[in-house]
Amino acid sequence: MFFTAVCRAKALLHPIRAGKLKSMIKTLEWTAGGVRILDQTKLPTEESYATCRTYQEVAEAIRSMVVRGAPAIGVAAAMGVALGVRDSSARNSQELRREFEQICQTLAATRPTAVNLFWALERMRGKFEALENQPLGDIKQALIEEAQRMHAEDIAANIAMGRHGAALMPARGGVLTHCNAGALATCGYGTALGVIRSAVEQGKKLNVYADETRPFLQGSRLTAWELNKDGIATTVISDSMAGAIMQQGKINAVIVGADRIAANGDVANKIGTYTVAVLAKEHAIPFYVAAPTSTIDLSLKSGVEIPIEERSSSEVAEVSGVRIAPEGVHAAHPAFDVTPARLVTAIITERGVLRPPLQESLAQAVHAEPPVPA
Amino acid sequence: MFFTAVCRAKALLHPIRAGKLKSMIKTLEWTAGGVRILDQTKLPTEESYATCRTYQEVAEAIRSMVVRGAPAIGVAAAMGVALGVRDSSARNSQELRREFEQICQTLAATRPTAVNLFWALERMRGKFEALENQPLGDIKQALIEEAQRMHAEDIAANIAMGRHGAALMPARGGVLTHCNAGALATCGYGTALGVIRSAVEQGKKLNVYADETRPFLQGSRLTAWELNKDGIATTVISDSMAGAIMQQGKINAVIVGADRIAANGDVANKIGTYTVAVLAKEHAIPFYVAAPTSTIDLSLKSGVEIPIEERSSSEVAEVSGVRIAPEGVHAAHPAFDVTPARLVTAIITERGVLRPPLQESLAQAVHAEPPVPA
Repeated sequence: MFFTAVCRAKALLHPIRAGKLKSMIKTLEWTAGGVRILDQTKLPTEESYATCRTYQEVAEAIRSMVVRGAPAIGVAAAMGVALGVRDSSARNSQELRREFEQICQTLAATRPTAVNLFWALERMRGKFEALENQPLGDIKQALIEEAQRMHAEDIAANIAMGRHGAALMPARGGVLTHCNAGALATCGYGTALGVIRSAVEQGKKLNVYADETRPFLQGSRLTAWELNKDGIATTVISDSMAGAIMQQGKINAVIVGADRIAANGDVANKIGTYTVAVLAKEHAIPFYVAAPTSTIDLSLKSGVEIPIEERSSSEVAEVSGVRIAPEGVHAAHPAFDVTPARLVTAIITERGVLRPPLQESLAQAVHAEPPVPA
Repeated sequence: MFFTAVCRAKALLHPIRAGKLKSMIKTLEWTAGGVRILDQTKLPTEESYATCRTYQEVAEAIRSMVVRGAPAIGVAAAMGVALGVRDSSARNSQELRREFEQICQTLAATRPTAVNLFWALERMRGKFEALENQPLGDIKQALIEEAQRMHAEDIAANIAMGRHGAALMPARGGVLTHCNAGALATCGYGTALGVIRSAVEQGKKLNVYADETRPFLQGSRLTAWELNKDGIATTVISDSMAGAIMQQGKINAVIVGADRIAANGDVANKIGTYTVAVLAKEHAIPFYVAAPTSTIDLSLKSGVEIPIEERSSSEVAEVSGVRIAPEGVHAAHPAFDVTPARLVTAIITERGVLRPPLQESLAQAVHAEPPVPA
């Protein structure tokens, strides 16, 4: 049955055409033994995989950023639900329902900002509720398949995003990105980096500038790693260099991912994104956000309502276990910031490129039927 | 004779009133054994001193950033000259002249951006040339005294700057600073941090936000360390957080130091300063630069002419010896950037606060007679 699901997932992916996808990085995958996850805390020096054998282990992997990136978090959570339900010893649907709630609660409590997490849990809940009266074995199998379908759909969405967004990239020039919105932040190919990959596959000559993205260094550790694997020219810069690099005329476009997009187009993304957006405005450089529609949260009027995760100050005060700030000094660690819609040139989704007024184009995109794969 | 010079230096300092200078950090000092330097590469975890016993060792300490900060570099170079000349075995003034040139050349080749280095060497040259026909012992002694005078004058200038600049600080609020323009960047008290110290001594309630300042981390390692010693409330933030913190209304003023100021008011300072200046403009926050007049270079029309040091990419690709970017990926490392005069609200010098048009006020300040100490 496990193999059936994989085959379906492949069938779903196939018609979308995967381009020249050079490095098919396996950020996370469902295996019979559990959820196999590439441990991103160890990159770039070590490429090692951890297999989460319980839903609690999946939750811990999300919390500790072994797996991170809004779309990847969503699918990891869905797989966590599938794993928890599969291994449940519930004897009837009432018991399973209680366990299901417990599993969802545990996974929902891991990270508050990326809405894809809650979107994924809701989708799994929808599936569960539709099947609640079926035999337990069928429910378990359906949830496993649903999680795998989400995995395949995520890659398909990224490839569609790449195709839509590639046209916005310069034929030749510099593109700055912040954090990692790549294969590692998704199930493969990437959102912002998917757009870059697609443009490069089309023959565009891009020099990517990767903000190192303190404190967690997703830019230097992850973005540079995966672009380097694909042979895409990449220069790592300290976050503070972005202004000077733009001032020197080296950047033609900025592209980032998103963790949650409010109904008015305000974008929550990795801390530092807002700074980059202000710099882009100052230099009249287009600022693009690439994200699947599952990142759009129409229930929130504006970015003010997006919950911003505050992470441990030790992640700022220490690097690789070495103390860089004096003991006793406070270090702030908001993990995300909000870029107001007015600084966003366009949002690239799997359903097309959304332009201002974003309030309208976002609502249209969310309510649109997903396009039939070509 | 050594003691005479120290006493003179103290006499020069005394009338300026040193305020409540709590932590009299000895960044560098002249000793009979050589130039004693607080090793800033080891802070904040270790407070250790290195004594440079030759001018070559002083040059190496500057190059490797054991001592850094434009004013401190200038005085360190002056002390390096004094040390080299003192220990010269030249038998006549011609031989000493040749050695003097060699010493200056070695010290000038250490770091290109901070003009205080060249200013200090020129001042030592002026002294040397005025005494060239005197007995060698007198020349040596005069150069030692000159270097010590520059040390004392630097502290006095910082205290004057602090007094002028304190009025610009809010009575209560947040002040953001980038890099370290403190006691550690000078001979004591600091330029930007001198203004903060002076404001706090006057009873102003300031919360300092210290950009950690990648790649060398002068903000988290040095600024937080010295402000913490003085009991001044300090929060370390990643450079990328500056925008979000401003967006939240937590910053009332930005104050930074400078490595070179061109005739038109363009300011070269630690990489990232320009980014902060753009953010300050976006949020209508005043952006102040605190620097002694020795940092002003009227020979350069604009910032375009300021040489920007490119340091090793390994300082970006590694933190505390741990690799954070993949092998084979290029990391850029411009050590400074240029903030255009239009983004500078005022420049605080020991001769007063300079306002736009900076072209005029800078020229006036440079050509003004230094004020007689009160």
